[in-house]
Amino acid sequence: MTRRQSARVRTSALCEETTVNIGFIGMGTMGAPMAGRLIEAGHDLTIHNRTRAREEALAERGAARASSPKEAAAGTDLVITMVSDTPDVEAVILGPDGAIHGMKEGAVLVDMSTISPTATREIARALEAKGVDMLDAPVSGGSEGASNGTLSIMVGGKAGVLESLRPVLGVLGNTITHVGPIGSGQVTKAINQVIIAGTYAAVAEGVALGLAAGLDIDAAHQAVSGGAAGSWVLTNRAANMIADHYPLGFRTRLHRKDLGIALETARELGVALPVAAFVEQIETGLMKRGHGEEDVSNIARFFREQAGL
Amino acid sequence: MTRRQSARVRTSALCEETTVNIGFIGMGTMGAPMAGRLIEAGHDLTIHNRTRAREEALAERGAARASSPKEAAAGTDLVITMVSDTPDVEAVILGPDGAIHGMKEGAVLVDMSTISPTATREIARALEAKGVDMLDAPVSGGSEGASNGTLSIMVGGKAGVLESLRPVLGVLGNTITHVGPIGSGQVTKAINQVIIAGTYAAVAEGVALGLAAGLDIDAAHQAVSGGAAGSWVLTNRAANMIADHYPLGFRTRLHRKDLGIALETARELGVALPVAAFVEQIETGLMKRGHGEEDVSNIARFFREQAGL
Amino acid sequence: MTRRQSARVRTSALCEETTVNIGFIGMGTMGAPMAGRLIEAGHDLTIHNRTRAREEALAERGAARASSPKEAAAGTDLVITMVSDTPDVEAVILGPDGAIHGMKEGAVLVDMSTISPTATREIARALEAKGVDMLDAPVSGGSEGASNGTLSIMVGGKAGVLESLRPVLGVLGNTITHVGPIGSGQVTKAINQVIIAGTYAAVAEGVALGLAAGLDIDAAHQAVSGGAAGSWVLTNRAANMIADHYPLGFRTRLHRKDLGIALETARELGVALPVAAFVEQIETGLMKRGHGEEDVSNIARFFREQAGL
Amino acid sequence: MTRRQSARVRTSALCEETTVNIGFIGMGTMGAPMAGRLIEAGHDLTIHNRTRAREEALAERGAARASSPKEAAAGTDLVITMVSDTPDVEAVILGPDGAIHGMKEGAVLVDMSTISPTATREIARALEAKGVDMLDAPVSGGSEGASNGTLSIMVGGKAGVLESLRPVLGVLGNTITHVGPIGSGQVTKAINQVIIAGTYAAVAEGVALGLAAGLDIDAAHQAVSGGAAGSWVLTNRAANMIADHYPLGFRTRLHRKDLGIALETARELGVALPVAAFVEQIETGLMKRGHGEEDVSNIARFFREQAGL
Repeated sequence: MTRRQSARVRTSALCEETTVNIGFIGMGTMGAPMAGRLIEAGHDLTIHNRTRAREEALAERGAARASSPKEAAAGTDLVITMVSDTPDVEAVILGPDGAIHGMKEGAVLVDMSTISPTATREIARALEAKGVDMLDAPVSGGSEGASNGTLSIMVGGKAGVLESLRPVLGVLGNTITHVGPIGSGQVTKAINQVIIAGTYAAVAEGVALGLAAGLDIDAAHQAVSGGAAGSWVLTNRAANMIADHYPLGFRTRLHRKDLGIALETARELGVALPVAAFVEQIETGLMKRGHGEEDVSNIARFFREQAGL
Repeated sequence: MTRRQSARVRTSALCEETTVNIGFIGMGTMGAPMAGRLIEAGHDLTIHNRTRAREEALAERGAARASSPKEAAAGTDLVITMVSDTPDVEAVILGPDGAIHGMKEGAVLVDMSTISPTATREIARALEAKGVDMLDAPVSGGSEGASNGTLSIMVGGKAGVLESLRPVLGVLGNTITHVGPIGSGQVTKAINQVIIAGTYAAVAEGVALGLAAGLDIDAAHQAVSGGAAGSWVLTNRAANMIADHYPLGFRTRLHRKDLGIALETARELGVALPVAAFVEQIETGLMKRGHGEEDVSNIARFFREQAGL
Repeated sequence: MTRRQSARVRTSALCEETTVNIGFIGMGTMGAPMAGRLIEAGHDLTIHNRTRAREEALAERGAARASSPKEAAAGTDLVITMVSDTPDVEAVILGPDGAIHGMKEGAVLVDMSTISPTATREIARALEAKGVDMLDAPVSGGSEGASNGTLSIMVGGKAGVLESLRPVLGVLGNTITHVGPIGSGQVTKAINQVIIAGTYAAVAEGVALGLAAGLDIDAAHQAVSGGAAGSWVLTNRAANMIADHYPLGFRTRLHRKDLGIALETARELGVALPVAAFVEQIETGLMKRGHGEEDVSNIARFFREQAGL
Repeated sequence: MTRRQSARVRTSALCEETTVNIGFIGMGTMGAPMAGRLIEAGHDLTIHNRTRAREEALAERGAARASSPKEAAAGTDLVITMVSDTPDVEAVILGPDGAIHGMKEGAVLVDMSTISPTATREIARALEAKGVDMLDAPVSGGSEGASNGTLSIMVGGKAGVLESLRPVLGVLGNTITHVGPIGSGQVTKAINQVIIAGTYAAVAEGVALGLAAGLDIDAAHQAVSGGAAGSWVLTNRAANMIADHYPLGFRTRLHRKDLGIALETARELGVALPVAAFVEQIETGLMKRGHGEEDVSNIARFFREQAGL
């Protein structure tokens, strides 16, 4: 049987099943609520987390616990990984106890972490050699989206494989977009973080100017929000900047991690991103001065400080 | 009668009138359709434009023509100016034949041009000495908004004066926001252009990255538009950037003029705007290379060129 | 007699004379020591300063005092202006009591202030209409150079006029370079300030990195100074940055003024200067926070603060 | 015998010897002429290069050839590595056939490549566990400096170890500076490349402004070179920028590699380097468009292109 045939058969199997046997690796801020939703939707989950204690809450709700990624993956049709960064994904998939050593031919691995597109393609090649298809499917929408199933999921990989998994992924997100071959999901997430970087800086500059001018900042905010200056950031995060108070939200530390991936990807592709590069430098300063765990709207700190506000 | 009493009486007069006697100076891309709407709404207009021939179309629709700003202003209750830049506003109001020399005590001047807040305050002081109140009321929404009355109008000056003029300004815009004392309208417009600058750059960086990565750019565009990266620019102008085609829209040359005002204002206030300053430099390059009359989304040219796209 | 003949005669006259009759306007930090050197060299000076009291010290050394630029210029062969900014030069030359109203045909005006090249050309045209040649001759070298005659003088205007004045200008500076037609001296000064801006930023980034790394900063400084990273700034100002102490030197406020001229000139010429524009933004922040009167090496404050140093 | 005693004994041994037994790994543009100088100075060299054919020229001059870094290191008192990047250094020292497996206790390894300070410290720890001291000793001065022994060598590690090696390193460079503990040499090199980045950008902005202004660019160059704007780059590389011709020199590709190390180091240390980050973005664009093998002064291409020059 060729790989192509194998893919067709597997796809059908996953499509027809209502209960999928899933290995889920990573019980962090995102992974835990996502796994919870999959359990609620009736799937059979075997879970693993490096810090084992974090498996307990889900185990009480019916998940089986595994002592390693390899064990979590063993015998499943689908492995989902949701961990912190590129080296973590490499470790849980390709490491000595990695999922790859437990997965069966014809199964699918979906990495929902935000990591390097280049590393993603290398992992996919290793999995392919074992007869395992991979999708890269990073998300946006934060822990709130993870809890209520409203994540936006950007998927790279074979379109047919994604189609077979829509019933499962639909439990996690309400917007699932196929954006191209393997790695494209990660590039799309990188694009997302690059655009966010510049948009936050843009809004923060506007807020600083308004604060310094001593006008009615809330009225001005309202006046510019409806037109060409409008953005999610302007609508939802300018208030943080005006109040100089930055509750989470999305951590500066994590945004900078993602921006680092984006800049590395751009470097490899030969794309100059001067604004994103500048924002990364500002975020470096914010982190150094202890503001890395605040919401990313705290970029306004930089502009406020420069203006003595 | 004190100035305060005078203001109260005048306000009432303007409120009660359904037909206002208006001097309108500036028949450009914005001024002409705005004057047209005021005529249609039943107001008496006396119009003037430096290039006199541009008065003709409106004259055919019933406007009286004046040979100078002074003559256009003579005897009116309200003078509206809508010209290109700070020196033009200074000339049509304070110049030898300027409106100030024709305006009667108790009348109001509303400058709807986009100019320097500092110059605005100086003009207002000169008018105040003649018993004339001034509002600065720059707009966003472009020539389309000027034609269909959907401009967003950001107003600085006395709140009471604005209230008296809402019936007139309501003909021109559907969002009229009082943002503070005289000059605040211009600062708000500056804020708007600063935010636009950074947001365009942000989206253009994202587009360049996507194009270089060779993914499904339209799908990726759709995937990121609904979340925290979302903006008017991303929704409405990324397509220009993807197509490398920049139909108007809003001219780069004019945005750079406005950005120059914003940066000058920021300089006076002591606010550092590194991203806006960077965008101004990019726009300088675009204009030098002949792209000043394209839509401002052509900032994507910079990022595409750098990436060899 | 044609203008050309007039120029030839005048040139000869100035060349042959050992004592030149000079009107000198501006007794500031730079102008006072420069005028002092000219007196010592045996020239006849008539001086004027807006704040008249600043004329006194020079008057005691033999200078005649004039109550206006016009009076200072009356009957002289050469007028030198050394004031703060473009509007000041315009006022002392073209204003109601300006030098232009006192100068005789065939005399020469040398503006040694640092101002706009565009304004310079306009002033030169007004002077030319009165039969007066102008050189723009801004300097570098600071008050120390002004005191000991080691200024570097960058001269725009007719080469022949400069040649006729070398004996006089040689009292003030030891490097006098003809760089092109009128305005070119100011552009060269602008170039100087642009290069300085980026070089200071470059050195400050290096210093911040070294301080954060905890290495032997003085040894590292020495190690990199002799090679391709070497510069006047690295040799002479890195020590300020390391000590976080910024004695004058050259004021940040004045450098930003000059950089503003440079950026405006670049805007007119269509040249993008993103690094200089960025430095201007940093300097805006430094000034707002009260550091404008320190030496320009205080740009290191920005990088140190960002790094929590 | 304690480590401390061992170090003292070894130091003495190396000091007294006139002929040192050296393993030299890396026969590239830099390594080959450096190895040549050591042979000429009378030292016994065993050389290795990944592409073995590059060993031949040196072998003809008396060097022994080794089939691996391990073999080159075997029995020597000193191993010098001079390869391209961090992974190469890790491979030739720590890899399966790496030098570490051949080195004897008490020997010293000097890495003269330009690599990550963090990786350097990790390598040093591995070597220390084997009783081998390490110095990081990156150089500046290019292939010319490598050929004539005028390199500037920035050394991190134990001062005593460096002292013992001065007779050998003095053959390679004429400025050898101890800058701190292990890794400090690499940080100093990073500082050097950061300062170079900003200085090149500064000079290129000045050149672009001068070219656009149409003045006598050579005269202007001369006028500003002697003062506060002066730098090695201005003196030695502005001519390239004026001619728009960029013969080597130092490759843009290699400078960007080094700048990447510097930015990564700054990221780890929490130092914001916005100008260096911007230059890296420009260099990314230059490389993408095929200019990576030109001299790094080709950053002027960016500014010239933006200004349509």
